[in-house]
Amino acid sequence: MSKDHATREENYSQWYNDIVIKANLAENSAVRGCMVIKPYGYAIWEKMQRQLDDMFKETGHENAYFPLFIPKSFLSKEAAHVEGFAKECAVVTHYRLKTDESGKGVIVDPEAKLEEELIIRPTSETIIWNTFKGWVQSYRDLPLLINQWANVVRWEMRTRLFLRTAEFLWQEGHTAHATEEEAIEETRKMLDVYAQFAEEFMAIPVIKGVKTPNERFAGALDTYCIEALMQDGKALQAGTSHFLGQNFAKAFDVKFTGKDGKLDYVWATSWGVSTRLIGALIMTHSDDKGLVLPPKLAPFQVVIVPIYRSEEELAKVLEAAASIQKDLKLNGVSVKIDSRDTYKPGFKFAEHEFRGVPVRIAIGPRDIENGTVEVARRDTLEKEILHVQEIGKKIKNLLEQIQSGLYNRALERRETLTHVADSWEEFNKLLDGPGGFIYAHWDGTTETEEKIKELTKATIRCIPLNNKQEAGKCIYSGNSSTQRVVFARAY
Amino acid sequence: MSKDHATREENYSQWYNDIVIKANLAENSAVRGCMVIKPYGYAIWEKMQRQLDDMFKETGHENAYFPLFIPKSFLSKEAAHVEGFAKECAVVTHYRLKTDESGKGVIVDPEAKLEEELIIRPTSETIIWNTFKGWVQSYRDLPLLINQWANVVRWEMRTRLFLRTAEFLWQEGHTAHATEEEAIEETRKMLDVYAQFAEEFMAIPVIKGVKTPNERFAGALDTYCIEALMQDGKALQAGTSHFLGQNFAKAFDVKFTGKDGKLDYVWATSWGVSTRLIGALIMTHSDDKGLVLPPKLAPFQVVIVPIYRSEEELAKVLEAAASIQKDLKLNGVSVKIDSRDTYKPGFKFAEHEFRGVPVRIAIGPRDIENGTVEVARRDTLEKEILHVQEIGKKIKNLLEQIQSGLYNRALERRETLTHVADSWEEFNKLLDGPGGFIYAHWDGTTETEEKIKELTKATIRCIPLNNKQEAGKCIYSGNSSTQRVVFARAY
Repeated sequence: MSKDHATREENYSQWYNDIVIKANLAENSAVRGCMVIKPYGYAIWEKMQRQLDDMFKETGHENAYFPLFIPKSFLSKEAAHVEGFAKECAVVTHYRLKTDESGKGVIVDPEAKLEEELIIRPTSETIIWNTFKGWVQSYRDLPLLINQWANVVRWEMRTRLFLRTAEFLWQEGHTAHATEEEAIEETRKMLDVYAQFAEEFMAIPVIKGVKTPNERFAGALDTYCIEALMQDGKALQAGTSHFLGQNFAKAFDVKFTGKDGKLDYVWATSWGVSTRLIGALIMTHSDDKGLVLPPKLAPFQVVIVPIYRSEEELAKVLEAAASIQKDLKLNGVSVKIDSRDTYKPGFKFAEHEFRGVPVRIAIGPRDIENGTVEVARRDTLEKEILHVQEIGKKIKNLLEQIQSGLYNRALERRETLTHVADSWEEFNKLLDGPGGFIYAHWDGTTETEEKIKELTKATIRCIPLNNKQEAGKCIYSGNSSTQRVVFARAY
Repeated sequence: MSKDHATREENYSQWYNDIVIKANLAENSAVRGCMVIKPYGYAIWEKMQRQLDDMFKETGHENAYFPLFIPKSFLSKEAAHVEGFAKECAVVTHYRLKTDESGKGVIVDPEAKLEEELIIRPTSETIIWNTFKGWVQSYRDLPLLINQWANVVRWEMRTRLFLRTAEFLWQEGHTAHATEEEAIEETRKMLDVYAQFAEEFMAIPVIKGVKTPNERFAGALDTYCIEALMQDGKALQAGTSHFLGQNFAKAFDVKFTGKDGKLDYVWATSWGVSTRLIGALIMTHSDDKGLVLPPKLAPFQVVIVPIYRSEEELAKVLEAAASIQKDLKLNGVSVKIDSRDTYKPGFKFAEHEFRGVPVRIAIGPRDIENGTVEVARRDTLEKEILHVQEIGKKIKNLLEQIQSGLYNRALERRETLTHVADSWEEFNKLLDGPGGFIYAHWDGTTETEEKIKELTKATIRCIPLNNKQEAGKCIYSGNSSTQRVVFARAY
């Protein structure tokens, strides 16, 4: 694997794409805007899923599954929602093909037209709230704490692998509550779950905040988010949690009888993260030598590469490798022995480096004699010689070091790329220079927000939770402001 | 939960439906033919998924994800495949909606017509083999052992919850091999995995066999299957594994260079099981008191119901329950404490019985004094008093007994419902009497097979593997036959 990929400096966007393709994470498919997630990329998604799923269940949620299709009329039931989602979506109009007259191909059977078109879900609030109507009668049926793992489709015009694809995989939580307070508490709780997942597992520091009214989810009263910063100084929204008030309950007539016997509409939340997170993971940690993965989400944490010349040597080396593998597994470390005889060690080294395997162990006949192995870590590229006796604990510790090291490196980078701007000039200079998060005063109007976006392509990523209140002047309008918000150009 | 459901005797079909609905497994959705899988039903699917996924990975397979959409022209590339799958499918023709002129609703934007229509995948051979083309160049790239967990859509006209729905969840394995032998070996290996899963985890005895040419998967050279027998004497195909030969490799031009430097087409298999298995699970074990679940697939294996009158008693009982829960968890048993204060114990007993929780433990103040609990098993409805000290091991053993007991009961039922027919009269008498599997001679022609189906609605479920060869006369045509095949009416 020679230098056949771009560096960040040369072309950041190409560098990202090269990593996705050459690390075998995903590729474009024959269907415009849809990707194929390859086994190595999917294994990362499975790790994420498993961890998030555990966290959802620990917080009392259950999984369920709702239809892929949404009747077209459902989208119109919630006024703001239809504006946000009805536009770019895949529409099913027919349910049958037939052989064409030439007998060679198939055509859509015009006789098989649906009475009402079906939309491929871009998100499932409408079909789920239509279902919740049958599940909720009394306060005893609440809260409903439901999550769905599913594919969704949004007909995006400009797509990029993982970051923006027409079809993507995600989870969407949908909960129903008896009171406003409880629903808000749930919204915030799931934001915390996402932030914890991003920081502890993805090793990505995030800002927790609330979106401006203009950037809210279509149909939400409040949208909370976690915002991460990529190496090129652009922000990436990594997860959102919405307080939906009673909007969907009213749209789908979902009422419950309280303990006091009174009928009221149910309160709602929804929250989601998607395969987009894999894009964030790549862009946060990777370097010019390829992918770098945090150990907690790596498909396998350690690869053992046997070094040998003869069949006899191979047998001995594989025996030693198996023993190390066993030791590591006992310490909760996942290990793969790369025993392919169709590739040489040098090729394997380069391949595993490019694919971001956190730790590589090389073992040959001389190592066996010495009772040692050569250990290379992917994040710093440092190598050391370790005694086989101590390998289990040492590697376990090393993986912990790598995990926290990646987080700290990302945090430092974010701090370096975080600035305060007090004037329009300063703001623009920062945007056109290093980029990053810019804390600046804003007058609180959608008009100003949109004007800034139009002029600079920067958006308000969020108003951080527990934001410091301080009087100031809006960097654009000069009108008075009570707090700084976080601006950035974003993915 | 009073007697508000049908018995098997009264109305088998209604009994099945009542269990699905009243045990909260699934329900029909607002979209014709599509179901909502409710949390309790989905939890069973998750148990199945986890187990199957482990078995797939143990046999060397990796998961990946391919697009939901298939370009219409792909279906036509394999001649037999298009016949089988192009007909009843959901077709996406447009990618945008717009506000209608009244401003109230949305309509399909006629400007946003796709150049080529997209089919929602009814199965993914075509899109996957189109992708494999880019993944395979040399023998070093083989075998490709890929599995996908996904939703698929077949526009069925008559649907039944779990058994036949327009959208369903499944896994589909797709593998590519260098030799015919290896592909056939893979086909058989995965059939064995399915059979092992059915028998050891679902507690359902199955016949492993091969389909007649007439019943093969569209595009396969051989279709292997596992066939189970339901309580009403009807068969249910519980999983299939296809040897696809080089059909798809030829259709999508997937060739590889062998060790000898020669180019050849790749050999293929595909295999799948779906949420239909939940239907098989329900119909195999359940009784007139509701769902019965094998412990290995029950969302939770034990429920503890606290019995109390005062808050003070409740506190004590919950403390004892928590201690039992801990003990059981140490023994690998999953336990739920039903501490809802909105329902009385009698209601809870009936509910958990109907929902098939394998073991119920009731504990009240008197039990605490005696150091005992009341244990009821769902399969036989027997109760016994157990000492708290021995509870962990005893319950663990009890669950194993229930698991094997259910299998044995199902096996006995199948044996009772398995017959041999040597004449057309006998054959029809059996079909219109007890039903079940009927071993009978068949002349080996599709013509006879179809005539029998037309006259009796019975189909050849399979030719069992390692079938005994014996000379005989076809029950329908009287022509000579070399073996008996398995007939049944089927779901």
